[in-house]
Amino acid sequence: MLEAVDLGPLGAEDVEVAVEYCGLCHSDLSALDNNWGISQYPAILGHEVTGRVTAIGPNAKGLKLGQRVGVGWNSGSCMHCHQCMSGSHHLCPEVQTTIFGHRGGFATHIRSHWAWAIPLPEKLDFVEAGPLLCGGVTVFAPLAMHANPNSRVGIIGIGGLGHMAVKFAAAYGCEVTAFTSNESKFDEAKGFGANHVVSSRDSAAIGKLGGRFDLLISTVNVALDWNAMIGTLAPNGRLHIVGAVLEPIPVTAFSLIFGQHSVSGSPSGSPVAMGTMLDFASRHHIAPQTEHFPMSRINDALARLASGKARYRIVLDADFRTA
Amino acid sequence: MLEAVDLGPLGAEDVEVAVEYCGLCHSDLSALDNNWGISQYPAILGHEVTGRVTAIGPNAKGLKLGQRVGVGWNSGSCMHCHQCMSGSHHLCPEVQTTIFGHRGGFATHIRSHWAWAIPLPEKLDFVEAGPLLCGGVTVFAPLAMHANPNSRVGIIGIGGLGHMAVKFAAAYGCEVTAFTSNESKFDEAKGFGANHVVSSRDSAAIGKLGGRFDLLISTVNVALDWNAMIGTLAPNGRLHIVGAVLEPIPVTAFSLIFGQHSVSGSPSGSPVAMGTMLDFASRHHIAPQTEHFPMSRINDALARLASGKARYRIVLDADFRTA
Repeated sequence: MLEAVDLGPLGAEDVEVAVEYCGLCHSDLSALDNNWGISQYPAILGHEVTGRVTAIGPNAKGLKLGQRVGVGWNSGSCMHCHQCMSGSHHLCPEVQTTIFGHRGGFATHIRSHWAWAIPLPEKLDFVEAGPLLCGGVTVFAPLAMHANPNSRVGIIGIGGLGHMAVKFAAAYGCEVTAFTSNESKFDEAKGFGANHVVSSRDSAAIGKLGGRFDLLISTVNVALDWNAMIGTLAPNGRLHIVGAVLEPIPVTAFSLIFGQHSVSGSPSGSPVAMGTMLDFASRHHIAPQTEHFPMSRINDALARLASGKARYRIVLDADFRTA
Repeated sequence: MLEAVDLGPLGAEDVEVAVEYCGLCHSDLSALDNNWGISQYPAILGHEVTGRVTAIGPNAKGLKLGQRVGVGWNSGSCMHCHQCMSGSHHLCPEVQTTIFGHRGGFATHIRSHWAWAIPLPEKLDFVEAGPLLCGGVTVFAPLAMHANPNSRVGIIGIGGLGHMAVKFAAAYGCEVTAFTSNESKFDEAKGFGANHVVSSRDSAAIGKLGGRFDLLISTVNVALDWNAMIGTLAPNGRLHIVGAVLEPIPVTAFSLIFGQHSVSGSPSGSPVAMGTMLDFASRHHIAPQTEHFPMSRINDALARLASGKARYRIVLDADFRTA
């Protein structure tokens, strides 16, 4: 529904950004359907924004009018807690998400604290960059924390997040194995840079990978044979969860103890992680594979996403302007 | 049952150790009762040995006849795999445990690969050192990997492992909270160095600790309210499992993702970790609190351990000698 919303006076530390493109993330759908039980309506969704700074609060730092920036999963944090002061603003207890209790990017303009409006590198592909701001940093951050070019990495689920994870891991210099339940994606996963592709439903094939992976990044939101997956970890290996699977993961103590394994998770990334990711994407020419819809056809885009057929990430192009 | 067992010719890289003391670990009981389904009988249990080197194979390195050494959970590894060559011998795929498929320390003598017969520091309390060799390094290794003197650490379960964990964490300079279901241990836990003691059955008290701990080390082998425990982790915090709880731990993706948390585990430690732990224990005068039994009364000791009343670790003193 298109309507005019008064965002009120611009916060002293905030900036306003004219939206040029905004990625459509599966978590927008989860918010729309209140799958996580935390939605607030009415809402403006959309949290993979790229655009230009159109207004700057008097206390905002480091940005210029007209500068190209991106706004992702978060659009504010307290800036003075231990986490913010340590550079882990994304773990701030008061972190402000962009679409829960804040007006998001499916709009002409979005507001953000200056720290969360991330400058985009000049050479980045602006048209395709939107999905990097949430999905991209969500899969890049685990690589930055837990992988190096010698790592053997498995990416579980080759969708909106997973296909970017394969591209990032390949560019990181890792040996990359893609796990997908969809055989029609096998060749595409190799095209994204996967060295190997394995069916996530083929327990026998997974069983043969025992002790192989230093890092598994799970992007799926459905339950898998988690013990089989943990069984593919090398000594000291880690299963890292970024997909919002709702059923608990049953982790056995022995599967952690004997191989010195970890099961972990992380939410998007800090402003510095986002900047590092954007620089890496720019230098390595990494862009999501997208389908574009004009923002006026957002309902068609939502239906396409819900169908599970989008390959691989949807970007909405701003096609309306209000005063 | 006391009997003479022929250990055969000494391996070229092995040493023989005359047992002076041997700790009694809960995993000896688990092996005796085949709780883990991997026991082999007849068995000689006991894997917290301190004693003196009495024979040295021709290719063994770094040890002298008469030298005081300790042998713990493992007594051999392949020495040439990636893990062994990286210093993580305890993660060697062919690691030889001391009591499964190998003759343990409830005996006059034990054999070990030279790399796993760990020299004991001169100033260490030999009489009490046995339990450091398995239980001690099991709780020290997570501190060495994941804590520093600024860490807020919780120790879950104040028993054989947990009471040593409290001592190590306090000496490490951490702020230490002990969790125990046994109120009669509250004061003793403080005596070991805990700054705070919380009932592991008091959900309200646990709830008040939200976001507090950088590292929780769980030494228990019973199911807890794991989600409440994970809820006490600070951002980036870790729940580390060393207790062999058999029921799977139900970990929710959101509890990992939002706080960037980890759930992990580890098995005892490498020879270098054991040496580091022994040096630390020697410098900080850390010894387990023990009850001593002569080895000839091992069945009484086993019954005492099974009763759950041992405070806090049992050591068997070698009181028999054969040719």
